[in-house]
Amino acid sequence: MDDDAGALPPKHQFSEWYNDILWRAEIMDVRYPVKGTYVWYPYGFAFRKHVYQRLRDLLDRDHQEALFPLLIPEQEFMKESEHIKGFEDEVYWVTHGGTTPLDVKLALRPTSETAIYPMYALWVRSHADLPIRIYQIVNTFRYETKHTRPLIRLREITSFKEAHTVHATWDEAQAQVEDAIVRYREFYDGLCIPTLVSRRPDWDKFPGADYTIAVDTIMPDGKTLQIGTVHHLGDHFSKTFEIKYEDINGEQQYAYQTCYGISERSIAALISLHGDDKGLVFMPAVAPIQIIVVPITIGKRHEDVIASAQSLEVALRKAGFRTKLDTRETRPGAKYYWWELRGVPLRLELGPRDIDAGTVVAVKRTGGKVILNRADINSGVACVLAEISDAMRAKAEEHTKSRLCTASSINALIAVLNEGKVAVVHWCGERVCGDAIEEKTNASVLGTEVRSPYVSDIEGACIICGKLGKVTLIGWAY
Amino acid sequence: MDDDAGALPPKHQFSEWYNDILWRAEIMDVRYPVKGTYVWYPYGFAFRKHVYQRLRDLLDRDHQEALFPLLIPEQEFMKESEHIKGFEDEVYWVTHGGTTPLDVKLALRPTSETAIYPMYALWVRSHADLPIRIYQIVNTFRYETKHTRPLIRLREITSFKEAHTVHATWDEAQAQVEDAIVRYREFYDGLCIPTLVSRRPDWDKFPGADYTIAVDTIMPDGKTLQIGTVHHLGDHFSKTFEIKYEDINGEQQYAYQTCYGISERSIAALISLHGDDKGLVFMPAVAPIQIIVVPITIGKRHEDVIASAQSLEVALRKAGFRTKLDTRETRPGAKYYWWELRGVPLRLELGPRDIDAGTVVAVKRTGGKVILNRADINSGVACVLAEISDAMRAKAEEHTKSRLCTASSINALIAVLNEGKVAVVHWCGERVCGDAIEEKTNASVLGTEVRSPYVSDIEGACIICGKLGKVTLIGWAY
Repeated sequence: MDDDAGALPPKHQFSEWYNDILWRAEIMDVRYPVKGTYVWYPYGFAFRKHVYQRLRDLLDRDHQEALFPLLIPEQEFMKESEHIKGFEDEVYWVTHGGTTPLDVKLALRPTSETAIYPMYALWVRSHADLPIRIYQIVNTFRYETKHTRPLIRLREITSFKEAHTVHATWDEAQAQVEDAIVRYREFYDGLCIPTLVSRRPDWDKFPGADYTIAVDTIMPDGKTLQIGTVHHLGDHFSKTFEIKYEDINGEQQYAYQTCYGISERSIAALISLHGDDKGLVFMPAVAPIQIIVVPITIGKRHEDVIASAQSLEVALRKAGFRTKLDTRETRPGAKYYWWELRGVPLRLELGPRDIDAGTVVAVKRTGGKVILNRADINSGVACVLAEISDAMRAKAEEHTKSRLCTASSINALIAVLNEGKVAVVHWCGERVCGDAIEEKTNASVLGTEVRSPYVSDIEGACIICGKLGKVTLIGWAY
Repeated sequence: MDDDAGALPPKHQFSEWYNDILWRAEIMDVRYPVKGTYVWYPYGFAFRKHVYQRLRDLLDRDHQEALFPLLIPEQEFMKESEHIKGFEDEVYWVTHGGTTPLDVKLALRPTSETAIYPMYALWVRSHADLPIRIYQIVNTFRYETKHTRPLIRLREITSFKEAHTVHATWDEAQAQVEDAIVRYREFYDGLCIPTLVSRRPDWDKFPGADYTIAVDTIMPDGKTLQIGTVHHLGDHFSKTFEIKYEDINGEQQYAYQTCYGISERSIAALISLHGDDKGLVFMPAVAPIQIIVVPITIGKRHEDVIASAQSLEVALRKAGFRTKLDTRETRPGAKYYWWELRGVPLRLELGPRDIDAGTVVAVKRTGGKVILNRADINSGVACVLAEISDAMRAKAEEHTKSRLCTASSINALIAVLNEGKVAVVHWCGERVCGDAIEEKTNASVLGTEVRSPYVSDIEGACIICGKLGKVTLIGWAY
């Protein structure tokens, strides 16, 4: 199903590398004939499955998974005025069933507030029904007019995890926002994706929210990728959709809500941050194949080696490692190249001499080779996989640190951005100064109230007006 | 989130029972404001998850899961003429992005042949690429003008598992059809859903197929529900979409294809066949909650009983049983009613006397009570759950047998149908006789080449023309 003609561009040509690795490693096929929509190859889909299983596991602690319809009637969609203003240019409309015009136009959900909240209005009766914490993982649609890019800027977002919660008070909703941020940081930390969490400026918050906290990561080219958002919705939607509960005094109160989402941009971040010149590098925790066993059958004892490799594969599988044995009739070198491109974190080589010595050669996708004892291969492999994760974490953190730089003037800020870095500046919080920053740099005010181990939160002079300002991230964003 | 006001209609009023049980047991909320689309409650979604996990496990043996886009450009969709004829009245069309009319209208997939096969044309190059066996689980859309019904006749099918395979020869595709039938029968057998497999008459085959084998089950009201189909596509689509491979002689050949699908009608069948006057009855294998533990805390020793019930729940969970402890402050009787309605297969009751005696009272949702020893509760519970599955299987088989009846004349056929049964007749296979049967009964010729333990395949006189005919199923179909 693939074509390995030509070489993968080097990673420092990031845009070319990214486009190429997706099809070469069989993550996505970009040739589907609708702009901004893509096909998940089975290998890519398997990767997605493991990543989203982690997300489900995190949420299932105290959320419930459900499923709401894709189609939203026009009148529901149009109810919340700020919300519709934010989305009206981006919504796909279904207007015909067969050859018949529909009485009511139907929107393809760009996000599901207006599909879910009419149901919440029916479900919420009493304070005893609260909190509600429900999520779904669905396809959503945005008619993007900007340049589309697989996994990053899509017309069909195939893998949108959206959680929607309902609470009795504004403070409880705020606590849920905090909990969601902690959960998202845990998710990305487990995947060795460093994050910058910040509060988006008001002009960039979710349409209809009180405020938005965003999770960004710095991509290899220094641009930021938003890989998660958490919104405090206040009572905007509950007032629009009449989501009320009876409090302990028997009085009707409007509920408070939050919503938070993660899309397949999480996959884009994993591919981009961990990959290298040779191809993908999958985190062991989410690798579709964690271990590839390559028998080295040069010379005699061919059968011997194959049998031994097979029993090695079976043993590793039994121990719970996602293992594959490559018995194709090609040179070992070609197999190394093949599985390195596809990001398998650990390769085990097994030849006649290894069998005699009771050893296995373990080659880490992150670099380095160790000899493992066959007798306690399970613990050996577990240990090496942990080393691989550690190396990936260290590399991703190093990258992130190297791509952050403080700037105390507008010229310094421009210089930092031109170096392909994200700038840490001080900003007074006024819209006029924020606009000035964005106009002079063509970059975005990502946010304030930064939570990151790499950024310290000390006040200073706004780089535009000189008044007291807060630490603020400025970057070019995807 | 629910309202238990009033009583569940008795099961023999099947239509009322079905509509009621879906919301009472929190499977689906039917109040979503778009006709034919419904909301999966978390409890219903958990049930769906377990059912579809079994389906995935069955397919993952030698299929790969992938994901293709929802939107199909008009020109691709229109390529296969028979196929489009079969669907043109049912397709939803997206015509606008924001306020902009689209250059190319986009269909919401009613099924994915025309989304997947242009990609297969790119993926298939050589005989070495074959067979391809890929499936996806997606939402599909049909603009149904008939009366819609949750899980059965939908405008958004939320849970369509569709497999699409490519083979070198017609015979290999036929072998795949046979394999798919075996797999589907295994799936339903594992769920205690009796099946009638038959070959649909030519006028009822899938648009663009050589032939269609269908899997039906008999619902409580005697109507049949199609719960799976397998299609031999011949080379119709490969010629339309140019899916060709180079054979071992270096020559280009058109490929042969099959496709087969199962939707949430599988869930409708499970609910309908196994439920009773008290509510749902979930197969232990797919029950979101397999065991509900109800502490009996009447009188003293309240703390004692709760602590013992908690440790029982923990032990059962550790042993892998999906267990829940109900500590709500309501009467045990109300809890029994609640969990019976929701189909939990096994209830464990634990009171002070049980603690003293080292026992647990096990009440089967299918009827009957046994005393289990606390000391070996895991094996006791496993045994009782197996008995529950056996009872469900026996009941479903008994129902199916009782709803099948032979008829050797058109009057007998009408009488059988009027008794709410599926008729086994002989039919010569000619369209004119088939039409006569359908006109005179208002029922459907379901199919020939019947595979069922309840139907023997002996030839006889066609009930219309008297010529030699094959065993044929006639029924009123959903």
